[in-house]
Amino acid sequence: MAVNDSVLRDLRAAVGDRGWIDDPADMAPYRTEERGMFTGTCDAVVRPASTGEVARVVAICAAAGVPIATQGGNTSLCGGTVPDGGIVLSTARLNAVRAVDPVNKTITVEAGVILADVQRAAEEADALFPLSLAAEGSCRIGGNLSTNAGGVNVLRYGNARDLVLGLEVVLPDGRVWDGLRGLRKDNTGYDLKQLYLGSEGTLGIITAAVLKLFPRPRVTATALVALPDVDAVIDLFGRAQGTCGDLLTAFEMMQHRALDFAVRHGPDCRDPFAAPHPYYALVELTSPRAEDDLAQVLETVLGAAMEDGAVLDAVIAGSEGQRQDLWRIRESIPEAQKSEGASIKHDVSVPVSAVPAFMHRAIALCESEIPGVRPVAFGHVGDGNIHYNLSQPEGADPAAFMAGREAINEKVHDLVAELHGSFSAEHGVGQLKIPDMARYKSAVEVELMRRVKAALDPAGILNPGKVVPPA
Amino acid sequence: MAVNDSVLRDLRAAVGDRGWIDDPADMAPYRTEERGMFTGTCDAVVRPASTGEVARVVAICAAAGVPIATQGGNTSLCGGTVPDGGIVLSTARLNAVRAVDPVNKTITVEAGVILADVQRAAEEADALFPLSLAAEGSCRIGGNLSTNAGGVNVLRYGNARDLVLGLEVVLPDGRVWDGLRGLRKDNTGYDLKQLYLGSEGTLGIITAAVLKLFPRPRVTATALVALPDVDAVIDLFGRAQGTCGDLLTAFEMMQHRALDFAVRHGPDCRDPFAAPHPYYALVELTSPRAEDDLAQVLETVLGAAMEDGAVLDAVIAGSEGQRQDLWRIRESIPEAQKSEGASIKHDVSVPVSAVPAFMHRAIALCESEIPGVRPVAFGHVGDGNIHYNLSQPEGADPAAFMAGREAINEKVHDLVAELHGSFSAEHGVGQLKIPDMARYKSAVEVELMRRVKAALDPAGILNPGKVVPPA
Repeated sequence: MAVNDSVLRDLRAAVGDRGWIDDPADMAPYRTEERGMFTGTCDAVVRPASTGEVARVVAICAAAGVPIATQGGNTSLCGGTVPDGGIVLSTARLNAVRAVDPVNKTITVEAGVILADVQRAAEEADALFPLSLAAEGSCRIGGNLSTNAGGVNVLRYGNARDLVLGLEVVLPDGRVWDGLRGLRKDNTGYDLKQLYLGSEGTLGIITAAVLKLFPRPRVTATALVALPDVDAVIDLFGRAQGTCGDLLTAFEMMQHRALDFAVRHGPDCRDPFAAPHPYYALVELTSPRAEDDLAQVLETVLGAAMEDGAVLDAVIAGSEGQRQDLWRIRESIPEAQKSEGASIKHDVSVPVSAVPAFMHRAIALCESEIPGVRPVAFGHVGDGNIHYNLSQPEGADPAAFMAGREAINEKVHDLVAELHGSFSAEHGVGQLKIPDMARYKSAVEVELMRRVKAALDPAGILNPGKVVPPA
Repeated sequence: MAVNDSVLRDLRAAVGDRGWIDDPADMAPYRTEERGMFTGTCDAVVRPASTGEVARVVAICAAAGVPIATQGGNTSLCGGTVPDGGIVLSTARLNAVRAVDPVNKTITVEAGVILADVQRAAEEADALFPLSLAAEGSCRIGGNLSTNAGGVNVLRYGNARDLVLGLEVVLPDGRVWDGLRGLRKDNTGYDLKQLYLGSEGTLGIITAAVLKLFPRPRVTATALVALPDVDAVIDLFGRAQGTCGDLLTAFEMMQHRALDFAVRHGPDCRDPFAAPHPYYALVELTSPRAEDDLAQVLETVLGAAMEDGAVLDAVIAGSEGQRQDLWRIRESIPEAQKSEGASIKHDVSVPVSAVPAFMHRAIALCESEIPGVRPVAFGHVGDGNIHYNLSQPEGADPAAFMAGREAINEKVHDLVAELHGSFSAEHGVGQLKIPDMARYKSAVEVELMRRVKAALDPAGILNPGKVVPPA
């Protein structure tokens, strides 16, 4: 159903010509997402430049019943920002850093600030904003918050949700809730900000946030560790956590095939070991105390594990360049996988104690279902989060392989459910995982979500079709 | 309105004789709270022994429209657990530790487990459950979670909300939501557990939880630091946080009068300094690495601050006994205040950067409003949380002093609001702070809370009259 012309005129007046896009070619990038799995329709893209303009846009849409898909950097991996009619509201022009309070260790930013720019603004205040993920150069903080983004530092600093002290939100009737508080403790009624964090723009539109800052790390020690099997990976994680406590900032796992793909296809990726090993862990310690000898701490942990036969080999980065070499291996995996043909992906989590069971069973399951399939598992194993990806069998037909995607997704997610895990650890639901919501969530849980949606967006104009499965 | 006899019979049958109290004398302690500010009525106290029994009780109450006040250790400081007719549901018999997963670093406990017992169960698994507060020997974890309790370790480990991975909740219609997940990452729809954490039993009844565990500290260093003024306290906090990062576990502030009261009236409390000083900070570092020389780290920070004239004097505990001596001063303050006559209390928070402005203005304000009043401020200043208490003027009439409570509460809370702070940092709302909710919360925020309440407890049977101001 097309949006009425007079409504479009009102919307254009609300944001001005600089905030208005209705040329089909210019709208095209807003109607789809980077993997090309979903494409939708919209009658206009509005780019408000202030919270007031967002409020006016939403009020106009509320009065006319026009759906709104809010978009930050449009880097959702679940089709969460693809519109289904109505308008796209882009936060790109809401890009001010409103305030930095170095004593309170907070930064107040608008929703459209690019994540890397939040990190930079924190650095300029000699502080750390720890959220860090592959898309940080293009994703926007409002999207990170509305999807409760994860990334490589969750182990130490938590998910995006944990980094937020306050929010400013435009409600689906166009009113503004000013919850921009910078308090570490505040028990005055329901913690409303929790409703908007992780709800993917279905309950309100986040326009600004007060975020926590941390002391900046001054020293780092990074190792790539070779391990005999996944059980040894989890054993090493327990040792590292018990010994290093909060010095442990990242603990990433890679199967040999993941490293191998990165080394074969990634830019400037080199295997630092002379021989292949079944598993690897990328372990990083950081500290704000310049005098901490982190390499020594790391050597102590790894030395003890090696003596016990729990670790096969290890390299500790001797310079920032070597550190970047190790991280480049980890970060090159998703792109490298593309050079090996089609891939089927799973962003799952299980309790850390269930990671070995998951890996053993998932590999056996997939190899039995799809002969020749090449599992390429890697991820934030310290959080129990595994990007359990499958590359097509060598020489197979990509289309035929991808035709089995839903069937194998379901089998892997069934296993995850059996292990009390999650079918979406950090990527969210969007529209891609609506069927999983219906399959794995209890009736009670889905009903509670529907009640929350109905209570906070009774007309259903905010990002319809996302997150909550239809009744 | 009395509960119908047949409903009472059904309730008794649901919990059995061991779970049933209807003798007025036995019910008395459940109808009031320790400060004696609030007393309510109820027709029975039920003490279910399982989640199934809680569910049956709630289903019976839902069918009959009987209100339920859920009670853990009944240590609320805001009248949050005092019933207003209907029944009290005590969680005291829901006291099993259901599981400990040392690899996943989680513990699964029922709502009625006493906080100190949760701490002990964690210790037995060589881990730390960090929530720690004055009432830990009698408060129960369900109450801690439903009030989002704070305490002395928030600076390092967060509030109770931050320590929860999963919940089991009985809904107001008697159904059970099983959200007992032990995952560090799970982005599958709305994070429903956030609704029940901190909502003081008004939306659902928490019956069990999966909690995070942490590596156990193996070394500790504790100092009591003398400071010239509150600005110096905040300056030292910044230095300590910047240098120590996560080693900094506690940073408590005391005015001289608070220390003086503790020394005069507290058991075994001794002033470790030869002369009085205007302010004190109790600073504690901990680490899971036994080889960390924390005393050295602390001396470095304090030495540099002393050289800059930012610190007047300091004592570092040389033994666990000396450490306990320092903490005893801090912990004796509330009790010691009672020996100095009547007191008016405020549990407020402001941004850490606003603590000096708050202290300067609040003291001037109160001394001008109540000549001779004795401010006794102390608290978790690293979180911006100040227990800003006022002891009556020496020799004044306690009743006359207390008659001015609401007036001075309002003036202090007005100042807090001006500084973008909170009128209830960690104690919650209960019924005591309902007037503050109406005064300080925006109309939008109160309406959102009402909508959430109406969506999740449409009949309004859970803890009526608490948290959300009446329309």
